[in-house]
Amino acid sequence: MGEIRKPSMKTWAAIFLIIFIAIGVAMLPQLNEYGKESVISATENEFMYEKSIHILVMLLMGFGFLMVFVRKYGYTSITATYLAVAVSLPLYMLVRPYLWGSAADISITNISMLLFAEFAAASLLIAIGGPLGRVNTSQYLIIGSLFTPLYAVNEWLLFSGAVIPAGAFLDTAGSVMIHAFGAYFALGMIIMLTSKKEREIAVETSKRSNEFALLGSAALWIFWPSFCSALVSVEKIPLVAINTILALCGATLATYAFSIFIRGKIEVSDIANASLAGGVAIGATVANVTPGWSMLIGLIAGAISVIGYTIIQPRLQKATGRVDTCGVHNLHGMPGIFGGLIALGLVASPMWQIAGVTISVVLALIMGLIVGFIASRLGRKEIPYDDKEEFILPG
Amino acid sequence: MGEIRKPSMKTWAAIFLIIFIAIGVAMLPQLNEYGKESVISATENEFMYEKSIHILVMLLMGFGFLMVFVRKYGYTSITATYLAVAVSLPLYMLVRPYLWGSAADISITNISMLLFAEFAAASLLIAIGGPLGRVNTSQYLIIGSLFTPLYAVNEWLLFSGAVIPAGAFLDTAGSVMIHAFGAYFALGMIIMLTSKKEREIAVETSKRSNEFALLGSAALWIFWPSFCSALVSVEKIPLVAINTILALCGATLATYAFSIFIRGKIEVSDIANASLAGGVAIGATVANVTPGWSMLIGLIAGAISVIGYTIIQPRLQKATGRVDTCGVHNLHGMPGIFGGLIALGLVASPMWQIAGVTISVVLALIMGLIVGFIASRLGRKEIPYDDKEEFILPG
Amino acid sequence: MGEIRKPSMKTWAAIFLIIFIAIGVAMLPQLNEYGKESVISATENEFMYEKSIHILVMLLMGFGFLMVFVRKYGYTSITATYLAVAVSLPLYMLVRPYLWGSAADISITNISMLLFAEFAAASLLIAIGGPLGRVNTSQYLIIGSLFTPLYAVNEWLLFSGAVIPAGAFLDTAGSVMIHAFGAYFALGMIIMLTSKKEREIAVETSKRSNEFALLGSAALWIFWPSFCSALVSVEKIPLVAINTILALCGATLATYAFSIFIRGKIEVSDIANASLAGGVAIGATVANVTPGWSMLIGLIAGAISVIGYTIIQPRLQKATGRVDTCGVHNLHGMPGIFGGLIALGLVASPMWQIAGVTISVVLALIMGLIVGFIASRLGRKEIPYDDKEEFILPG
Repeated sequence: MGEIRKPSMKTWAAIFLIIFIAIGVAMLPQLNEYGKESVISATENEFMYEKSIHILVMLLMGFGFLMVFVRKYGYTSITATYLAVAVSLPLYMLVRPYLWGSAADISITNISMLLFAEFAAASLLIAIGGPLGRVNTSQYLIIGSLFTPLYAVNEWLLFSGAVIPAGAFLDTAGSVMIHAFGAYFALGMIIMLTSKKEREIAVETSKRSNEFALLGSAALWIFWPSFCSALVSVEKIPLVAINTILALCGATLATYAFSIFIRGKIEVSDIANASLAGGVAIGATVANVTPGWSMLIGLIAGAISVIGYTIIQPRLQKATGRVDTCGVHNLHGMPGIFGGLIALGLVASPMWQIAGVTISVVLALIMGLIVGFIASRLGRKEIPYDDKEEFILPG
Repeated sequence: MGEIRKPSMKTWAAIFLIIFIAIGVAMLPQLNEYGKESVISATENEFMYEKSIHILVMLLMGFGFLMVFVRKYGYTSITATYLAVAVSLPLYMLVRPYLWGSAADISITNISMLLFAEFAAASLLIAIGGPLGRVNTSQYLIIGSLFTPLYAVNEWLLFSGAVIPAGAFLDTAGSVMIHAFGAYFALGMIIMLTSKKEREIAVETSKRSNEFALLGSAALWIFWPSFCSALVSVEKIPLVAINTILALCGATLATYAFSIFIRGKIEVSDIANASLAGGVAIGATVANVTPGWSMLIGLIAGAISVIGYTIIQPRLQKATGRVDTCGVHNLHGMPGIFGGLIALGLVASPMWQIAGVTISVVLALIMGLIVGFIASRLGRKEIPYDDKEEFILPG
Repeated sequence: MGEIRKPSMKTWAAIFLIIFIAIGVAMLPQLNEYGKESVISATENEFMYEKSIHILVMLLMGFGFLMVFVRKYGYTSITATYLAVAVSLPLYMLVRPYLWGSAADISITNISMLLFAEFAAASLLIAIGGPLGRVNTSQYLIIGSLFTPLYAVNEWLLFSGAVIPAGAFLDTAGSVMIHAFGAYFALGMIIMLTSKKEREIAVETSKRSNEFALLGSAALWIFWPSFCSALVSVEKIPLVAINTILALCGATLATYAFSIFIRGKIEVSDIANASLAGGVAIGATVANVTPGWSMLIGLIAGAISVIGYTIIQPRLQKATGRVDTCGVHNLHGMPGIFGGLIALGLVASPMWQIAGVTISVVLALIMGLIVGFIASRLGRKEIPYDDKEEFILPG
């Protein structure tokens, strides 16, 4: 039984071009919406607009450059980021209105639709951090096209009220729905997307590539308060902003301390990544806790994340032979679940909270496995962690 | 007949210092304005303020770092960006009130004046992308000083109502007035600013320089919705933001596909540049079309831009012997005209729309030619695409 | 008398981890605040929120990457920035309510508390620019922990009304309180934090490190209007924004001219730094002068700053044997004092204005000396301007 013959780069480019024209055409009827009044005031729309731009910074500059840490793979990391954003935003906006949602949330006469789409894109970017460097650009597009509707399904399970009662699951800024879902989707995928050869190859970095990663990290740190406050009511924004920042401060300091405790010296990729774990973990409860607690949650999240990078990931990788390139399990997976579980102390019924976390993680793992399988059948990257197969390089 | 003896760096620095002190002094009378009430509400001013900062990101970080792709010329690219911004913003604010404008638009008691000045700076940065690397810093200042009032004249022709009836020319976010004008001005200039020697020299890039260019590109992509929505009414902002983003998504995907179709592999400078062509092309009609159309417009604009970089530019360069360093014709020229022509389907009188496009392109070409001639007489860069003539280099 | 035995990296990490847990715990009682109504409207809070994010860009991306110019020290520069921000924001928020302030200013039910904390962080980042490269990460944390409450004390002296009458000292955006205080604190510290060996060692840069510094510079330039307008009344924002931008334009152009006048060629670190001196100098009077004056103030500030870098700093360094790594005296010290003194023409009583400047400078110098002494006793960096002692390096 031989390998399926993989389509060429050009064939894939043509297929995706057709898909994108189709998406554009499929969106044309939505134009009718534009006669309608927005249910959100112009001022509230404007406030959300600002946050939607801030989240775009996180997507393209934040996640994008954080993934440039792979020395010979910077062009692909950024291109994959561009493609993931460009595929998920329109696809989500196309799919979501057919799936669920009140007019207030999803009409394209207000900005919240864009925010929901950006959250989907964020979760997708987390997911591709797992197999980063071992798939080619067409596979990123395949993953993005399949991930986006599946993400919307999980969102429907958690928040539409059809399964879990409306309001019973607390996850204001997506510790679970965005971060943990993306991370466990990544873990599902890498089971299918790590070849034997790739288990042995070290991911190379350089001073330059790590400095770009720090830039991406800074972009995420800075705009995280807008990620957390994008959909909260206006009067909650000061609290949410301060809580988010204190959680990030806590995680930054814990990262510094634990990086030294465990490694003896500071690993700069810990600083770039684990410092953000406070933002991941505070997401679920950011509108419900106080600044002091936010800082403590951040401290714990930073510690969890560094322990993940230094102790858990190497063991997991050895045991399973699977490579999580960006360590998304350490930054988004464990801190995301931790964030979801903190909410247990704040919700009316802990059962629904546990149900929400469990649904997200299990669905992500299974769907990641399936999408990883499909992607693995439809492409193969020959030289891992290197741009040269697909890009024209200078000199 | 010998060469005019070129003034030294110090002489030019002194001349421009005097010019800038003069601008500052000339602005002093405008202080009277500050007793007056703003005709715009504080809230609207604040919304525009946010966008003015976003556009500053596009100017200094976006255009600036996009031009760092020339390997040995990064210092000059950023310095030229700083100087172009620093010369055009005050000069525009000084000149515009004498030229035209109602109090609502141009008084410095409201922020719209700053937004108009930033648009002029954006158009100037596009223009200097043409001769980039073949002129020295004093020439960038000369170009900037002459470009800014000429840009204001074109703005007057298109929108003051004195020539084209008010409202007859549709160009909400400047596909024509900002992008095409800057690009054809560049084409005019490079006729005068490409020496025989320079026709043969390849523009060198490196991995580092291209990664910085991708960062600049990301800054432009991210904040483009604020460029497009800066001057639309508040209730139009959700539509404009979503349309802009979908146009950029479309262009990004088309760039990916056409880069592979035409080159066989991906050229990362296509990703960095042509992905933005959707933002250029949607500018004219961004407040009048629907999301589906925006995506389709973006797809076409991305394709046009890649065809420009891969097929049109090399032929044009061979035929004319002129070098468009950043390929501004491909990113801003053709997509800008395309954007202006889409509006033909939406305006009351197509004649005025065609008139506006024609005026902008013809005026830009002629004025670019003249300004290029003047600049070429007032300076000469000896070593193209290299910082070392004018900058102290490390090591 | 032997050296005090310095604690190890791990010991310091443990000490600071405990301190940070303590801060988090100490903040817990502040939760009571959250039942209260904000005295600021939701809209005003939102406007300030936007500016708080912009200032975060200045802190982490601006100051952080501006300090990456030291070639072998990029990891530490960014890590020190992260740590300085992470230590100063919570510490300021913890300390300030015990020190002074009306509910309107300092309650954590509104965002102004966060803005005040960010100003403290900005001043701290200026201060660490002095000894940058000659201390290790635990010393940055020590400096940050001691600096933050001392900064709050100076703020109390200037603005609480207890010493200088309320409103008598004009310093709207902190030319004196933030910039000059941080800079003279740095000068105090470097007296204690420059070893004999370090006096001889040149600070190495590279093209890459300088391009990152230019990126940091651009981030500061772009968002400076939000720094200046963060706390002014909404109707003043257009004037403040335009004034700030014109001051930056003026400084950028003066930097260009004076860099050439004095050095013969352009030094790119002048462009990166002195261009910002206009923002520093305009701070005190930004809400009280007109655009023309702002431009002229910026021109003078840029000139002062370049003269500082080229003429004053080398002589000062030779005379005193102390190294101001980032030249904070040239960018924040002299332009800050200059800004404070411009206000002499605008205040009711010049005496109080001079008193405010004098208090800030003297207090900063003395406290910097003491904090520098403490820091010098509690750590020693063996290899200056190099990451390798404390960081795991690639390859």
